[in-house]
This record gives sequence, C-alpha cells and structure tokens, in this order.
Amino acid sequence: MRRANLGVVLSHVAARGPLSRASIAAETGLNKTTVSSLVTELVSTHLLHDTGDDERPGMVGRPAQTVHLNPDGALSLGLEVHFDYLSACATDLCGDVRYAHEVAVNNRASEPERVLDQVAELAGDALAAADAERLPAVGVTIAAPGLVDVDAGVAVASPDLDWKRVPIVGMLSERLGRPGLPVRADNESNLGALAELWAGAGQGLRDFVYVSSPHGVGAGIVLHGELYRGAHGFAGELGHVTVDPEGPQCTCGSRGCLAMLVGEDALMAIAAEHGLPSATAPIAARAIAARIREGDAETAAAIERMGGWLGIGLADMVNLLDPEAVVLGGCLGVLAEWLQPPLREALSSGALATGCAPCRIVPSRLGDAAAVRGAAALALREVIADPTSIRALLDGARFTARDGAPKRPHLRTLRAT
Amino acid sequence: MRRANLGVVLSHVAARGPLSRASIAAETGLNKTTVSSLVTELVSTHLLHDTGDDERPGMVGRPAQTVHLNPDGALSLGLEVHFDYLSACATDLCGDVRYAHEVAVNNRASEPERVLDQVAELAGDALAAADAERLPAVGVTIAAPGLVDVDAGVAVASPDLDWKRVPIVGMLSERLGRPGLPVRADNESNLGALAELWAGAGQGLRDFVYVSSPHGVGAGIVLHGELYRGAHGFAGELGHVTVDPEGPQCTCGSRGCLAMLVGEDALMAIAAEHGLPSATAPIAARAIAARIREGDAETAAAIERMGGWLGIGLADMVNLLDPEAVVLGGCLGVLAEWLQPPLREALSSGALATGCAPCRIVPSRLGDAAAVRGAAALALREVIADPTSIRALLDGARFTARDGAPKRPHLRTLRAT
Repeated sequence: MRRANLGVVLSHVAARGPLSRASIAAETGLNKTTVSSLVTELVSTHLLHDTGDDERPGMVGRPAQTVHLNPDGALSLGLEVHFDYLSACATDLCGDVRYAHEVAVNNRASEPERVLDQVAELAGDALAAADAERLPAVGVTIAAPGLVDVDAGVAVASPDLDWKRVPIVGMLSERLGRPGLPVRADNESNLGALAELWAGAGQGLRDFVYVSSPHGVGAGIVLHGELYRGAHGFAGELGHVTVDPEGPQCTCGSRGCLAMLVGEDALMAIAAEHGLPSATAPIAARAIAARIREGDAETAAAIERMGGWLGIGLADMVNLLDPEAVVLGGCLGVLAEWLQPPLREALSSGALATGCAPCRIVPSRLGDAAAVRGAAALALREVIADPTSIRALLDGARFTARDGAPKRPHLRTLRAT
Repeated sequence: MRRANLGVVLSHVAARGPLSRASIAAETGLNKTTVSSLVTELVSTHLLHDTGDDERPGMVGRPAQTVHLNPDGALSLGLEVHFDYLSACATDLCGDVRYAHEVAVNNRASEPERVLDQVAELAGDALAAADAERLPAVGVTIAAPGLVDVDAGVAVASPDLDWKRVPIVGMLSERLGRPGLPVRADNESNLGALAELWAGAGQGLRDFVYVSSPHGVGAGIVLHGELYRGAHGFAGELGHVTVDPEGPQCTCGSRGCLAMLVGEDALMAIAAEHGLPSATAPIAARAIAARIREGDAETAAAIERMGGWLGIGLADMVNLLDPEAVVLGGCLGVLAEWLQPPLREALSSGALATGCAPCRIVPSRLGDAAAVRGAAALALREVIADPTSIRALLDGARFTARDGAPKRPHLRTLRAT
C-alpha cells in the first residue's frame, strides 16, 4: 500500500509540476499526514526536492513548501542499433536529455560481437560521464530492429542486419560489467511509439500507430493508451505486409513487402537516381526534401509514388485497427509534407471507414531520435511508477555522498554524422 | 459497493456452477453475512435459485444450501441480418439456446424498411413466445454486416447490402413497440468473436482474430481478452485489405480487396463452376466440402487457391497483430480442413514471426450461428456483471406473479433453410 502510494505521489508531481503537500493531498485523495510522510521518504531518496519556502507576498502564516522532481534523482540510458549508426541518449528524471552521442557506422557488414563492442563503448562513455556528475543510472535499454524477444533479451530476427537469435542483452551486460544495472532490449518502433506517446505527437491520443522507416518499415501500435505488443511480442511488422504479390523479393523471404518499396534503401535509391547525396537514409531524405522545395517535379513524383505504396499498407492497417492517427516517424516524418496527400488519397479509397471516421496523418515530433528517446525513458517511467524500485538499484553510499542542491549540468550533446 | 458485490457473486456462480454460500464467501473473499444478504437479494430477483438442502449422506448437522443460476431469470434475444437470411436466437441466463428461427430471404434486393419489417416480425414472435413462458427479456441485439456505429445504433455502411446510414436500432425499436426493452446493434464479426470468446474456440485465448466469410470477409479482434473495436468502432475490416492491387473492383470502390477473392460470392462461384448447389454460401460450402471428401482434385485446388489469397490477408494481419490464433468462422470454418494447409504455408512465408511464434489456425465451434449467439449473449453478460440493471428493465409485477420452480421449456428450435 505504501509502495503504491509512493508511486501515486511521485507520478502526480511528475505530471502536474511543483506542488505543495496540501495540493498533493487534495488532488490525490490521500490524507495530509500520509502525504507528508511519503514526501519525506521521496526527498530522502533524492527523487523529490523541497524548493524551500514558497514565498507568497502578502500571505500571513507559515508559507507552504512546494516539492518538485529532482532532475538529478535518476538517469536512464537509451541505446539504438541502426544499420548505419549507433546512438546513445540519457535522460533525467524530468525527461530532459542530458547526454546524446551518435556515431555513423555500417552495421550491415559487422558481426553482432563487433557491433555490441561498439554499443558497449558508447554506453560505457555515457555511464562514466553520469558517474562523474554523480547522476545515478537506473537502467539501460537497447533499441534494436526486427523481432525482439523482450523477456529473453534476444534479437530474434533482424533481416536487415542479418541477425538471428542474438542475445543482445546478455552480450551488452557482460561488456558493461555493471551487474546491478538492469539492461533490456525492445523493438525500435515500439520504443519510438512510446516516446511519441509520452512526449511527442502521440500525447493525448488513445489509439495510434507510429510508423517509421528505419530498416524497411516498422510500426509501434498504441491501443487504449498502451503499447500493444502482440501475443508473442512481435506485433507491428508493417514492413512485411504484402502490397504487391508480384513485387520484388524481400530479405524476409516473401515477395512485394512494403519494406522493399518504402524503406530506407528505396529512399537512398531515389536520392541517387536524382543525383542527390545518398550516403545514409536521413541524408537522402533531407536532400530530397530540399530538392522538392526547389520545385523539382520529378523528385516530387517519386515520393508521391512511394506514398502510394505506403498508402496501400496503411489502408490495410487502418481497415484492421481503425486508429485515430498515424504518426510518421524517422525519414517518413522528414517527407511528411509530400507523403500526406497520396496517403490521404490511399486511405480515402482503400480504408472502408475513412469517409465517416477519418484517420489523421501527422509527422513525428521527435524525429530520428524517437526510438532512442523511448529507450531512455523506459527505466525512468518505472522508477516514477514504483519509486521503491530505485532502492534495489542504488547503493545508499551514493546518496549519502550527494550534495543537496542540484547542479543539473548538461554533460555533452554530440551528434556525429 | 453493494451493487458491485452483487455482480461479483452472480458472476462467480455463473463461472463456477452451483455453490454453497460458504464456498462463495471463501472463494470471493466476501464475508459470510454479506454473501447471505447478497444471495437473498439475487434469489428475490429470480437470478439465483436455492436448490434446497444439499443432501450429503453421512454428514452431521444442518446441510449447506447450494445456489445456482436460475435459467429462467433472464432471456436475451439476438438477431442477425445477413444478405441471404434473417435469424433470431434467444438464450437464457445459463447460456442455453431457448429459441432459434432462421428464414431464407434475399436482402440484397430489399429496402432497409422492408428488411427491418421482417426482422421485427421475427423478433416479435420470439418475444411473444418468451412472454407466454414468462421468461423476462432483458435486451435485444441486432448483428449487422459492415460498419456499425454502436453508440448511435446506425449501420453506417454495408456495401454488400448497399445500405448507407440506416438507423437500424431506431427502426427496430419503433416496430417492436416495447419502449422499456434495450435494443442495440453491433457488427456481425465483432459479435461472432465475442461468442467464440465466451463459449467457443476462443475460450482461454487472450489474443485472437475471428475471421468469417459472410458479406465478404470480416474479422472480430480480441486483444487482452477483450473485443478491440478501434477508435471509431470500425476495426476488423479484413475484407477490405488489399491483396492484389491489380485485382477486381470491389463494392467498396477499391481494387483487389480480400472480400472479392474469398467472400461468399467467390464460394458460390466455385460451387456453380463445379456443378454443385450454390443457392446460398453455406449450401455451397457444404457441397464443396462433400465433393472434396469424395476425392475431387479440381474442387480441392480451387479451395486451395482461395486459401492462398486468404493467407496473404491473414499474414498481413499476423504481421501487424501477432495473435495466438485465427478462428475460422462461418463458411470458412466448414472448409477449415482444406484451408488450413495453404493458410499455414502463407503464414510461414509471409508473416515474419511465424518461425519463432506460430499462430494457430482453428475452426469456429459455433459455426454459422456465432454472430447471432454473440448478439443473444450480450445483454445477459451485462445482467450478470451488474444484476441491479435488471430492476430498471423488468416491472416488479412480472416477478411477483412467477412460480418458484423453473419449468425451463425449450420453446422451439427451428431452422428454416
């Protein structure tokens, strides 16, 4: 009961911002004495901070003290393995990015061992920086492409990396050498969808599908305000929906998968065909966007055709799931302005209910960083829901050595391309 | 609180069968005095029955009385509008069918007014039979094809009947002339899925998709043990998933919809082509099954091809939703034996996760009657969850006039073809 109430108080402050103990009691329905005792415990674990006296000029009597989240109370690390980059991002208890680092590297040509070596190096740097600032790390989540068995921590099948049954969580844990630190893995589109739900274009939506283009096309499905994972954790494989039974052979073994016609390879091919930079898909997407803005009709037509194929896949998905909105993430978000018209057209002709129940098509708010932001947020959301979980993670020593006032430094924010 | 506890007790007896008051208390965690008082109230509203003394030879002391559901405590009526039949089915509080009547009629050629006249006549006959037996009707649900706005009670779009925005609930209520009796409507595949979940092949499953062939192909999606309706109530339109962008024009306006290649029309065409009876799809399906059993390879090949198309649509759905199972209903269930091999083949090549997370393909247990059975069960499930709802529905007079012992007659069980 007390454990649940600690979560109620911390979640309430996280959602509503700085509050007095009296307001917390009034708004949560807990009694004032209980709230005081819970706040004292949360302050002692450095998850909440007392602002000191809340000065209210003209008020008589002892002023109310307000409490707010201590940004330095917990830090969580997100990592992402993409076929042409690796990325690390750490966010604090307030959800602010405190560390970001991305390295361009061709992972299609690498063995999983080599990729995990590099991921561990990125993660080690981030955790060392956090240690130096005495920011307590509460968890590491790695975003991976393809099918991820979340419970086992295994990348079960990632056709684009040519990975099969790679135990990424075990391999990363071993390399990190921090036995107390929870490490987990999840599918990149699932994490992107969660990031958009918590802090992006999905805020306030109940049912939406986040669609992104890394490694073909992936989807993260949010139903009733929660990520829907499927019976085995493998829902959202939009990229392997058949849009053309006579289409090209896909890396998954099937034919005419959406991923072959709309994925990053297709985008890089369009850029190359039109004499644009095409080293990576984000570079290609930005170059294509710039060219279309200059008025180039041929490039615009190529993106429109891509929108037509994507539209067939999205219409299938809308027919099955009837969501409120589709959030276009990654490179699709960069090109949203030109994808929206053919997508709307495809939904209007191919999705039975769009006449009376239109599905909105909106660009991502977190862009390429959605997956790694979702990965970073995951462990923090758990600490906020169950603040007692942090006790098992952190040794008391770290807390007793900390100073009272938060410094809140931005460690470094790098973005290598 | 008392209201919720009445539901707890009634639901517990419905799930577990005849129980003593002491067992109900022990198993629900409610105290014995509370249970006694709740049972007394449920017996007084005729939802529970006392069996009298539970004779246990050799036991000393006052024997415990067991209580069980009173089958005659409530009756609910399901109706179905199909393009070539109308159907009525009433089930009692124990879930047993007490009345069934089906009439063959071509509704494609009829105005909604005419169809609703006939539905009202069917419903009126069923309710009159219930009245004569003093069975209290607690609700009527009408299963309709296509998009149904459940809140408004409107068949928004039924391409196969050529219906647009038909206010079926209002039209039926008006014709029934029973202002106190709740009438509602829902999509036939949704109701079929609920029937299979509650009393058929979906029992014990958490995530499954019920696929049936009336009016093309429809799906009812059960996620986390509950029907998933979508943001606007229009989820599950599997029949309008595109499986062949170059395929035939569909009644919905799009091209190459699954419904065009796998629906009842396709089945009747196969039957006609092979010189088999094809007046209705169920007749065609049974004739095809008999012919294949006789060893006819050509008919078998036609059903295998149909399975290939259905497999593309199901693989798309499995890629997106990753369910535990697909339940084949209606005519698809009749042909399940021959559809399963090509469907398994299609899932294995087209659904990314099937290698490590196989999706089972099982036939419906309720057959053609699934939708109307689900429709009949709906109002009863609500009474069991909230027994106080029955008070508003039924005038006290009906109860006071009832005899103690249930007669439980089977009113009539007709099936016109």
